[in-house]
Amino acid sequence: MFRAILAAILACWATLSAADDLGSATPAETKVRGAAIPSIGADRSIHFALMAPAAGTVQVAGGDGLGAGPFPMTKGADGIWTVTIPPAVPGFHYYWFVLDGVSVNDPGSRTYFGYGKETSGIEVPEAGVDFYDIRDVSHGQVRAQWYFSKTTGLWRRAMVYTPPGYDSGAKRRYPVLILQHGAGEDETGWTRQGRAGFILDNLIAAGRATPMIVVMDCGYANRAGTAPLALGPGVPRKVIRSAFSAFEDVLVHELIPVVDAEYRTLPDREHRAMAGLSMGGMETLFVTLHHPDMFAYIGSFSGPIIPGINTGGEAPANEPERFDPRTAYEGAFADAKAFNRRMKLLWLGVGTAEPAMFRDSIGGAATALKAEGVNLVYFESPGTAHEWQTWRRDLNDFAPRLFR
Amino acid sequence: MFRAILAAILACWATLSAADDLGSATPAETKVRGAAIPSIGADRSIHFALMAPAAGTVQVAGGDGLGAGPFPMTKGADGIWTVTIPPAVPGFHYYWFVLDGVSVNDPGSRTYFGYGKETSGIEVPEAGVDFYDIRDVSHGQVRAQWYFSKTTGLWRRAMVYTPPGYDSGAKRRYPVLILQHGAGEDETGWTRQGRAGFILDNLIAAGRATPMIVVMDCGYANRAGTAPLALGPGVPRKVIRSAFSAFEDVLVHELIPVVDAEYRTLPDREHRAMAGLSMGGMETLFVTLHHPDMFAYIGSFSGPIIPGINTGGEAPANEPERFDPRTAYEGAFADAKAFNRRMKLLWLGVGTAEPAMFRDSIGGAATALKAEGVNLVYFESPGTAHEWQTWRRDLNDFAPRLFR
Repeated sequence: MFRAILAAILACWATLSAADDLGSATPAETKVRGAAIPSIGADRSIHFALMAPAAGTVQVAGGDGLGAGPFPMTKGADGIWTVTIPPAVPGFHYYWFVLDGVSVNDPGSRTYFGYGKETSGIEVPEAGVDFYDIRDVSHGQVRAQWYFSKTTGLWRRAMVYTPPGYDSGAKRRYPVLILQHGAGEDETGWTRQGRAGFILDNLIAAGRATPMIVVMDCGYANRAGTAPLALGPGVPRKVIRSAFSAFEDVLVHELIPVVDAEYRTLPDREHRAMAGLSMGGMETLFVTLHHPDMFAYIGSFSGPIIPGINTGGEAPANEPERFDPRTAYEGAFADAKAFNRRMKLLWLGVGTAEPAMFRDSIGGAATALKAEGVNLVYFESPGTAHEWQTWRRDLNDFAPRLFR
Repeated sequence: MFRAILAAILACWATLSAADDLGSATPAETKVRGAAIPSIGADRSIHFALMAPAAGTVQVAGGDGLGAGPFPMTKGADGIWTVTIPPAVPGFHYYWFVLDGVSVNDPGSRTYFGYGKETSGIEVPEAGVDFYDIRDVSHGQVRAQWYFSKTTGLWRRAMVYTPPGYDSGAKRRYPVLILQHGAGEDETGWTRQGRAGFILDNLIAAGRATPMIVVMDCGYANRAGTAPLALGPGVPRKVIRSAFSAFEDVLVHELIPVVDAEYRTLPDREHRAMAGLSMGGMETLFVTLHHPDMFAYIGSFSGPIIPGINTGGEAPANEPERFDPRTAYEGAFADAKAFNRRMKLLWLGVGTAEPAMFRDSIGGAATALKAEGVNLVYFESPGTAHEWQTWRRDLNDFAPRLFR
């Protein structure tokens, strides 16, 4: 059976490829070996194809940067559905086909963990931009680090980036950045979708960032013996607090001690940073403002600001809430001078094409904090949405500011 | 868009879960977070579900160990298609849904690279067997090692297992096992589907295997500037030779030197082994018998024996070919005594439920080689097919015999 299936799939790639004149288009780098489609034009238009002779309707849809889909596909006499969609925003986009109403992956692309499941992804190059590409520089390693969590009663896997030269420099110790993914993703997001390893390699090679260890864990944790919490939009704050609190315990009491034992870290607050995107940014503020004794650098990338999340009421998480720098986050910012003395960096960012909910929440908090005298960096990623291109740019701006 | 989609998916998991009384069944460990299905009964029957209200027919199909599918699924009033299939063989099985004729992944499961694409997989536990499970022992690390290949003109990624204690034992050097996946898979297969890291951790903890470094590369390589070779069943031998030869150059001239430079290896033939499964077993014999100066241990797991692959004619690879120990593989076995003196281990294995093509080819060669006086280990995995449970057992038998 195996050989027959493999042969059929190889024939399918060949059929799809032969049916299409790619012209000046280039196969996406996120495609699987052997496939020629999806392909990307010089203008960043994207050509998709799916063989589905019996289907009634097929569409392609995906992340905001792909444009205002879903885009209807057209069936050819050969049973292959195709479409070329208008130029997309550069960067990584999740996408999927909608096959008679069912969302399915493109067999021609790699999958990436997003939306709580394995989802196809496509990399759209940005002309002249290579800060997140693999280049001819020294490369760090990304390691799978398993550890047992008493909090959850389960083995967990963190991904750990060690910088170039880590193995040969047997006595040197390094600072640590904890870097978290967003809702529906997992510990592989930052290296696969986000290219964090390549971004750090390139920054370190250029002398722009201090060599550091980067620890990327799964941002979901469920206390042993309790039912899993569904962390979606609109859930009550107490559910978010409960989920974040379990993750906080895993991170503070389990993962960080494991990393400090297994790696040559500088295990003090002056050499420890935390950042995250979206839900991971919310988690970053939750954890670091609870533990200012452990972290001196804070980054929230497109993380909605929920000033009352730590102690506030039970309003839905997406209900607008006025940001008061004196009371937000249990008064962590109330004494601006003390905060500025203690924290070496507070960094907030958002993409200009993100929904108003994100822009208003993050931009508004940044303005209010600045007005109160809190030092912070506020970064806007031009033209990018609530997607990985925003967060790659964020990391590229954030990492050089650490441990200086 | 992101939040709405994530909410819809969370609602989908909840609907699927609520629609089913799992009874004594247990959610598969290969499911995604939040999903309760697929689930596995105490008798190893498996329950699958897919929401597809508009579909005309839905089936589930997969690897041989799942049984004689495809299995038709039945549509409920809620638009959810379900089936409970008869007890499956233990181990890891690839699977997929056939939705009106199109093979699609199960959104409820993780995907694994197989059949040349991302494919759903399910882990069916084997009662009383835990040699491939994560256990409370010291764990090695699996590292992504990028390297540039002049042969292919591309950056490549190998996965490298370093044994427990590698980082702290700063002067100790280790032997190396090169371990290759099968056709349609990639460098992640041995750690994800095969659990090679956990198998080695458990063997080392029990004192049954010498601590070693395990290097897992992608077995596909395409010479720079040439069109990719489609390596499927029935392709002419010269195509296989050409593809294997490019991989051989990458392995021998590029990857092994990188590993010897980046890791604390014992860089001589007495401390270097190579093994692989299916296509990876074919590649192992191809490479090691060309380079007996570089390898002292050889393992072919379910690898079809093609005696004339190195120099023979252009017959299709799957045409029966008589195995003559004196001429096979350019006469590598012609002088049995010399072979036995030089090679510390030749290991061949096959599952008893594999197709006759594999059993006859591998068993026949083992019998013929033994009759000529060539020392070898021949291992049969009881009741398992051309699937990962066979290869996990193979590695568990093979690794303890290395570097003794």
